[in-house]
Amino acid sequence: MSQEPSIGLIGSGSWATALAKILTDKGNPLRWWIRSAASVQHFLQRRHNPAYLSSVNFDTSLLTLDTDVSVIVRDADLVVLAVPSAYMEETLSVLPADAFRGKKVISAVKGILPVGHRLLNDYLEERFHVPLSDYFTIMGPCHAEEVAAEKLSYLTFSGIDPAATARIAQRFNTPYLNTVVNDDVYGVQYAAVLKNIYALGAGIAHGLEYGDNFLSVLIANSADEMASFLRRVGARNMEVGVHHLIPGVSQSPLRKTANYAASVYLGDLLVTCYSLYSRNRTFGNMIGKGYSVRAAQLEMNMVAEGYNASRSLFEINKEIGADMPIASAVYRILWEGLPPGEAFRRMEGGLI
Amino acid sequence: MSQEPSIGLIGSGSWATALAKILTDKGNPLRWWIRSAASVQHFLQRRHNPAYLSSVNFDTSLLTLDTDVSVIVRDADLVVLAVPSAYMEETLSVLPADAFRGKKVISAVKGILPVGHRLLNDYLEERFHVPLSDYFTIMGPCHAEEVAAEKLSYLTFSGIDPAATARIAQRFNTPYLNTVVNDDVYGVQYAAVLKNIYALGAGIAHGLEYGDNFLSVLIANSADEMASFLRRVGARNMEVGVHHLIPGVSQSPLRKTANYAASVYLGDLLVTCYSLYSRNRTFGNMIGKGYSVRAAQLEMNMVAEGYNASRSLFEINKEIGADMPIASAVYRILWEGLPPGEAFRRMEGGLI
Repeated sequence: MSQEPSIGLIGSGSWATALAKILTDKGNPLRWWIRSAASVQHFLQRRHNPAYLSSVNFDTSLLTLDTDVSVIVRDADLVVLAVPSAYMEETLSVLPADAFRGKKVISAVKGILPVGHRLLNDYLEERFHVPLSDYFTIMGPCHAEEVAAEKLSYLTFSGIDPAATARIAQRFNTPYLNTVVNDDVYGVQYAAVLKNIYALGAGIAHGLEYGDNFLSVLIANSADEMASFLRRVGARNMEVGVHHLIPGVSQSPLRKTANYAASVYLGDLLVTCYSLYSRNRTFGNMIGKGYSVRAAQLEMNMVAEGYNASRSLFEINKEIGADMPIASAVYRILWEGLPPGEAFRRMEGGLI
Repeated sequence: MSQEPSIGLIGSGSWATALAKILTDKGNPLRWWIRSAASVQHFLQRRHNPAYLSSVNFDTSLLTLDTDVSVIVRDADLVVLAVPSAYMEETLSVLPADAFRGKKVISAVKGILPVGHRLLNDYLEERFHVPLSDYFTIMGPCHAEEVAAEKLSYLTFSGIDPAATARIAQRFNTPYLNTVVNDDVYGVQYAAVLKNIYALGAGIAHGLEYGDNFLSVLIANSADEMASFLRRVGARNMEVGVHHLIPGVSQSPLRKTANYAASVYLGDLLVTCYSLYSRNRTFGNMIGKGYSVRAAQLEMNMVAEGYNASRSLFEINKEIGADMPIASAVYRILWEGLPPGEAFRRMEGGLI
């Protein structure tokens, strides 16, 4: 009887906690890095995360908790990374360069690393020599709170080897969690970044007192703009070849396009843009109503992901060269001080 | 100085009233058929429609009102049809077969005629010999109430001759109404029908207590299913040729595909599925909660468009042959008595 690969989880926020629930509900033993020793104690005594999704009770017999990230990574065959992209480099800084050798890394990180505007796989390849064939992503429209409530949700697992990706997805499949597999490992990550920019744009539109008719036009055009960017990323990957990232592979295994109406692209855009609780939408709303970026951040006491993402995407798109009037308008409002009303009036006429 | 073609409008519901506002705000004189003589009197004395969008005041010097549809059609070069599809045949029954000869007909009707499951252009071709080259549509995500409030909205004008279509669109272009032109005159009409079926499906999902995660997956997959159907319609039009509908044309001028993320397709789907006030969504919600079709209709005192549309589409798709698991589930629930929970459980697994 073959032993299943052991799973490690890095992160203890609400999304990490939701993933831990899914994995343990499926019966997987889980090695889980939790930063604070006090939280570990609370977990073992009270069987739930004190800070996030505290209604979720865990079968602690399946959990091996540790505050040392290097212990968790050392003992796991599959390492799920679920800390916010802004803290990723710091969290992994204690690890030696060969920490991930022979392991598979699964990213549940929705965002671009702020330093160098890189996707996580590019960082992992540079810092830890993780080949693209050992890199997988978990993305899709999935509020952690609904996972806690066991409302049926869908997650898309992406990797360049469909069979290996499907085996990983299988570890997460539960009665309330349907899994989808695709091979567009770059596209799904960019989609997860773009959706935050467009949700911020939807918030700005609301703040500027546009109505539901316009909002639907803006979001539909955002979906179109996203697909146009992703098609260019796909084409570029085919041209320049990302095969150097995969040992022994001389042809790029990446597909040129995908079905951009699938849940991991369009579904995630919709749940983010239409959610009234989205931080990006709330932040955008304040910007549209005339708050400065600084004032909106102070008021919300946090940074909306779409804020940094809009600048990263603007930089990345200098190379990709997609036509992105909506993402550009958001960037110019947030980073160049263009008045929101003026930016939207310029952009309006190009929507179809 | 050439005289601009005169415009007639058939219909006096909220959508017709919104179109009348747009046309007169642009300065177009308007010949307007209003069924009831009392409403005509009210209009002339009080300058607004007594029954719909009553906050909209009209410049009555631009209006020629008549209760006789044949007078309005006779005196107009462009005839805008804006009565609900269920009443269209009855409304036009007083007209002789040559009533539309030499005129352009512009459909603002979102729906399939219940008899024979036909699009309006097919009916007009059969009954009045209106060639496809004289037929245009006005579609898109546009709640009449937001037009009344002059919230920026977008309408898409479709016709097989782009120049003629653009000239018509120009008559509607105002500061609060952006116009888009395309040539997919079949596709936009089917999209307007499909969106009501999918909004009904979204309502059923809500009634069955699925959450926002699932709703976004369902709506994204609905967009994908819509595009798949429309691609097949386009391909079929190319194959069988619709050129017989256009005098002197031996090649089909219809395009095979369009950009299905544009507002007239995806935008209209979104505004309908996410509107909490949508009759289709409300009706679906009651069905999902266990009401029978009859009980839901009695309770709402009206018929949601998606109800009849689901059957018409089911019949039409016997010829088109698209894979439509979501539309089929809605059809089977409403017309074959399949329990909603069971229909959704069967369909869930195929969503991506």
